[in-house]
Amino acid sequence: MYRSLSRSVRSLPSVRTRTLQPAQVRSLHSQTPHRRHPFFTSNPTTASRSQSPSLTSQVTKRVVSTEALFKSKKPQYRLFRFVYRGLAFFGFSVLTITGATLAFFIYDATTYKESAEFGDLSIPEVALSPVRGGPKNLPIAEILVDEEDSEATRKCADKPKLVVLGTGWGSVGLLKNLKEEDWNVTVISTSNYFLYTPLLPSATVGTVELRSLMEPIRRVLQRLKGHFIRASAESVDLENKLVEVSQVMDDGEKRSFYVPYDKLVIGVGATGNTHGVPGLEYTLALKSSGDARRIRQKLIDNFERACLPTTTDDERKKLLSFVVCGGGPTGVEFAAELSDMINEDMITQYPKILRNEISIHLIQSAGHILNTYDEALSTYAESKFARDSIGVLTNSRVQEVRPDRIIFSQKDTEDRTKVITKELPFGLCLWSTGVGQVPFCEALAKSLPGQKNRRALETDSHLRLIGDDSGDVYAIGDCSTVKNNIAEHLTEFITDRVLSQRERRTGSRKAVDTDSIQLSFGEWRALAKEIKKRFPQTSQHLRRLDKLFQDFDTDKSGTLSIQELKVLLDKIDSKLTSLPATAQRANQQGIYLAHKLNAIARSPHFPSAGAPITTQPSFLGKPQLLHKPTVFPEDESVYKAFNYRHLGSLAYVGNAAVFDLGGGWNIGGGLVAMYLWRSVYFAQSVSFRTRMMLAMDWGRRSLFGRDLIMP
Amino acid sequence: MYRSLSRSVRSLPSVRTRTLQPAQVRSLHSQTPHRRHPFFTSNPTTASRSQSPSLTSQVTKRVVSTEALFKSKKPQYRLFRFVYRGLAFFGFSVLTITGATLAFFIYDATTYKESAEFGDLSIPEVALSPVRGGPKNLPIAEILVDEEDSEATRKCADKPKLVVLGTGWGSVGLLKNLKEEDWNVTVISTSNYFLYTPLLPSATVGTVELRSLMEPIRRVLQRLKGHFIRASAESVDLENKLVEVSQVMDDGEKRSFYVPYDKLVIGVGATGNTHGVPGLEYTLALKSSGDARRIRQKLIDNFERACLPTTTDDERKKLLSFVVCGGGPTGVEFAAELSDMINEDMITQYPKILRNEISIHLIQSAGHILNTYDEALSTYAESKFARDSIGVLTNSRVQEVRPDRIIFSQKDTEDRTKVITKELPFGLCLWSTGVGQVPFCEALAKSLPGQKNRRALETDSHLRLIGDDSGDVYAIGDCSTVKNNIAEHLTEFITDRVLSQRERRTGSRKAVDTDSIQLSFGEWRALAKEIKKRFPQTSQHLRRLDKLFQDFDTDKSGTLSIQELKVLLDKIDSKLTSLPATAQRANQQGIYLAHKLNAIARSPHFPSAGAPITTQPSFLGKPQLLHKPTVFPEDESVYKAFNYRHLGSLAYVGNAAVFDLGGGWNIGGGLVAMYLWRSVYFAQSVSFRTRMMLAMDWGRRSLFGRDLIMP
Repeated sequence: MYRSLSRSVRSLPSVRTRTLQPAQVRSLHSQTPHRRHPFFTSNPTTASRSQSPSLTSQVTKRVVSTEALFKSKKPQYRLFRFVYRGLAFFGFSVLTITGATLAFFIYDATTYKESAEFGDLSIPEVALSPVRGGPKNLPIAEILVDEEDSEATRKCADKPKLVVLGTGWGSVGLLKNLKEEDWNVTVISTSNYFLYTPLLPSATVGTVELRSLMEPIRRVLQRLKGHFIRASAESVDLENKLVEVSQVMDDGEKRSFYVPYDKLVIGVGATGNTHGVPGLEYTLALKSSGDARRIRQKLIDNFERACLPTTTDDERKKLLSFVVCGGGPTGVEFAAELSDMINEDMITQYPKILRNEISIHLIQSAGHILNTYDEALSTYAESKFARDSIGVLTNSRVQEVRPDRIIFSQKDTEDRTKVITKELPFGLCLWSTGVGQVPFCEALAKSLPGQKNRRALETDSHLRLIGDDSGDVYAIGDCSTVKNNIAEHLTEFITDRVLSQRERRTGSRKAVDTDSIQLSFGEWRALAKEIKKRFPQTSQHLRRLDKLFQDFDTDKSGTLSIQELKVLLDKIDSKLTSLPATAQRANQQGIYLAHKLNAIARSPHFPSAGAPITTQPSFLGKPQLLHKPTVFPEDESVYKAFNYRHLGSLAYVGNAAVFDLGGGWNIGGGLVAMYLWRSVYFAQSVSFRTRMMLAMDWGRRSLFGRDLIMP
Repeated sequence: MYRSLSRSVRSLPSVRTRTLQPAQVRSLHSQTPHRRHPFFTSNPTTASRSQSPSLTSQVTKRVVSTEALFKSKKPQYRLFRFVYRGLAFFGFSVLTITGATLAFFIYDATTYKESAEFGDLSIPEVALSPVRGGPKNLPIAEILVDEEDSEATRKCADKPKLVVLGTGWGSVGLLKNLKEEDWNVTVISTSNYFLYTPLLPSATVGTVELRSLMEPIRRVLQRLKGHFIRASAESVDLENKLVEVSQVMDDGEKRSFYVPYDKLVIGVGATGNTHGVPGLEYTLALKSSGDARRIRQKLIDNFERACLPTTTDDERKKLLSFVVCGGGPTGVEFAAELSDMINEDMITQYPKILRNEISIHLIQSAGHILNTYDEALSTYAESKFARDSIGVLTNSRVQEVRPDRIIFSQKDTEDRTKVITKELPFGLCLWSTGVGQVPFCEALAKSLPGQKNRRALETDSHLRLIGDDSGDVYAIGDCSTVKNNIAEHLTEFITDRVLSQRERRTGSRKAVDTDSIQLSFGEWRALAKEIKKRFPQTSQHLRRLDKLFQDFDTDKSGTLSIQELKVLLDKIDSKLTSLPATAQRANQQGIYLAHKLNAIARSPHFPSAGAPITTQPSFLGKPQLLHKPTVFPEDESVYKAFNYRHLGSLAYVGNAAVFDLGGGWNIGGGLVAMYLWRSVYFAQSVSFRTRMMLAMDWGRRSLFGRDLIMP
């Protein structure tokens, strides 16, 4: 083998040419044919000997020899050559990898730092002992300790203060799209990280690790030279533009202070919706990373307890009964992930009796799971769950949760009026049925006029908090809802738009009774344009303006009376659904707000620097307020209203996924859809770091499976 | 550029030869020179035209052209060729990687499993409702629920029962080296994973993740078809060979049951040593994964609290004061890792004031940190810590820990009798000063005769628990110590060895008073050999037998009297130190025990199958004991005594590491030593999975830094 290989190597011109140096080339013309390659030598030698009489025979001989050479390129030679090349390439690859590894180690070696000395830091006295003030006479954190840490932060210190409450999808969408050095950004939240919530169900069973879903908020803030305060927002003083914040210290003492703002963004999210069901303390939620940890711990505990010899059959069944309340994406994905984990990992590590006794049930109040998705997808998911032995209990309403069982009523599938009360013992019950308001928002909404929604803070279509006259407070994400009440704005529209236009046309101001006004088609078209601009969500319902005009001109007068117009707008209002409480919406709102704040910062009326700071506290009378709020241009003058664009919904249903892309575009399928689902979440992931970690997690699951252990 | 490159490509024979097919070769002899390569065509064409009159000029011309070709191979051509080749190789590499990725995805796709149905399982009734018995009339877990899960487990069910308490280094060393199908192995522990303790300090700051240090014990057991019970061992009934185990259920009910054994291995580890210091509840330990989590959480909490505007200067100093009690490897490595994290990560993410106010102190009772290491290494570590501004307080003893401060007394470095009492406020205090006994071992030791050590269970040199007559209970790891009391065994040695030898020699049995016996050198040599065999740790002290004989023959009688021998053995006893409480020792003991149990299983007297099982409980009189203990051959007859071999100690001291390899071989150095330190731990890691995860963690630290977040 070795000999053959070496021959094949010799006959390889590619190897030869590499060693063919000018000196050798010259030697080809000499009379010494030895050590020459038979292939190369033939031509020049022949040339130089062309005048010799024995040329013919010689040349013929050479031709033969060359021919022999070509003939000798039998398949096995080609194989040898192929093998040789393969080895060469392999060697090169190994060298490349070794080189890359070495380079990585060299890079790695540079990342270890010795202790650094800064020398003296200049920290403003007012940052270390803040002046007190405001209605409650609390310390006012006007300047923070890191305000002068670097040249860049010092630059931002003079900019208007943008305070962001929360570190969820909305806030991060905002922070990632905000331009540098426009605002002095401060983020306040109880968690110092952003959590990639869509993959939270995967983290409960260890398909991915929680840490791969978390991005430190300080890293997100680094580009903006922003500040972070880990504390919880207690209330907002809209008049003085102060957020009251509190933090519990080591010894349990609660400390409150004010953070002043020029613009405030509320993105504190929502809690679960209790629906008034008693006993929810026995269930687990899936909103935070702590929730995911608790669920994983509980799963492991239950599995371990189910193995014990002292556990009775009934107890084992109970421990291994998993009940999910809520058939939305979170509930469905948790059930799917749980089923995956059981079939792929638990089965190989735990006694087989566990697999036999496990049950998963999903309780859904609507007639289908994933009921906001296209019905074809709901059906696909349901049939997938049926194959995976996940019991789907539709048309069921939970009545009560007891420590070890859940009591629910189910409508009969045939006779819808018949309701049967059933119960299910459980070892773990997940409660994931919609969103409810956090106490902070509840209190804020109550204190404001015009806030009528019990579930979320209402904003106008510019995301400004309704009831705040300054227009400098925004609410985004799950804690907020955009109020679409066009009909209520009818008089306003008429006055602003129609009458002023008529005035301009006629040149005179006439006192017109708005109730008796009649709109021509042209006026209706102009009005509709204005409505679409102010309420972008109405666009899809204001397409066929002529048809609408005809349909709602009930008296066929050729004009729309104010009553007819009201009916029309009411109809459109009823068609507008409230925005979904999803990561997608929150993120879009955050990005929208970032663009708006960027536009505001570029508008000519933007305050060039923050209000002057008084460092001297006044001990006489009412404490002096340090921060003087800034006046900004109106939102409408710099940026358009918020328009939510639904990009589709997707859900994982157990080694399969469903995509509802809207407009009848649905995909539901197995592994390929699952990989697609992963790709979407991979691409949406917040940083390169989390992406790398997600990829590693998925690879690890593939190689080693999920681990049923908990640190 | 492009043109030049394409020319260079054409002149590359390597590319040409690939496309050179037999058909083309034949065409080289035809008269059509077009489309032929100038290089290849020259030879055969010339040959076929050799009889033409215009040959000379033609050939000459060709030679020139060829020569021109060769001449044109100027450096830039070689560069082009090089670039081209490089690109080709690069392309190949990309293809390889793509192929590998594809292959991985294809593999990955096979790892997703659909719901599997087992059909009916056969589970012995006695496993589901165990018979009661034993002194406390508790359920006896004679057969476990997974005993008949597969053919392989069914095979093991008949084997003698080996029960292992604990999942630490000793237990895993044992489990990984035990031969398959010899024993019916059951592991009992409160944690269902093995924890790679040497890297625990790294996990407190996020250099590595806790999960990378944990290996599910069920995976380790898979090879042995063993069982795992997550419960805590309460007591051992040595007479009936039962371990009492308890587990707290979901509702707080404590359930106890017996697990019968034929051989029992106690490897439950140790707790921290309190040294009688009050207030340790205010400190944190670093023994479990939970401890590491708590420390990491506390670090983050303190950093976040230190940033708040309401935190005073004194509070900030206190929050950022980290005190480590204990200068052993754990304490030193934690201080080093903390310092690394602060210099490499905290500094970039948190306000700079934090770095300025941070302090790390290490309180050590001895005169040096790492005092079991070579002094040169202690000095190296101390000077490294001095550079890193870690305060090392030697000759200091902690008096009391209060919620926010530690009070300690320090000996004056000059006047050793002068003791000054000092105090340090702290935000986090780590207590890592030696090992103490867990309650289970304490109770067991008290119930046994001959157990005199207050810190650990005493075993003989075969690791058998002293005081247990059966010889079937072993203790390994931190919970145990090997009793080296040669002097106590003196009479035994004399009777067993010297007198029986004399008897054999003389052929008659003489009643000899052992107190008046005189040993010849030959007898001493034989005796020393026996001692070395039974107490391998004495080997190094019994090397120069002649010198010892001379030195201790105080009356120069040429023989050793029993008194002289006693003095000699006492001297050797005093030289024997107790084994260190390290992972290394525990692991060696586990491996030793595995080899012994393998040897026992292969000895001819090994019971071929477990004792018969009676499934009928007796309701009359004393409950019937199900398990009939097996009788094994004596340990001495099948395997040698345990001999600890110290392979060296190592410690990480902050981007540097020290190695004490024994015998004066020391290494202390910077990054290279650190990589070496990592390599050792990487290689020692328990599975391929943990190794991969460790490598990923280290890489992640390098690329993204440590993250100061906590799920």
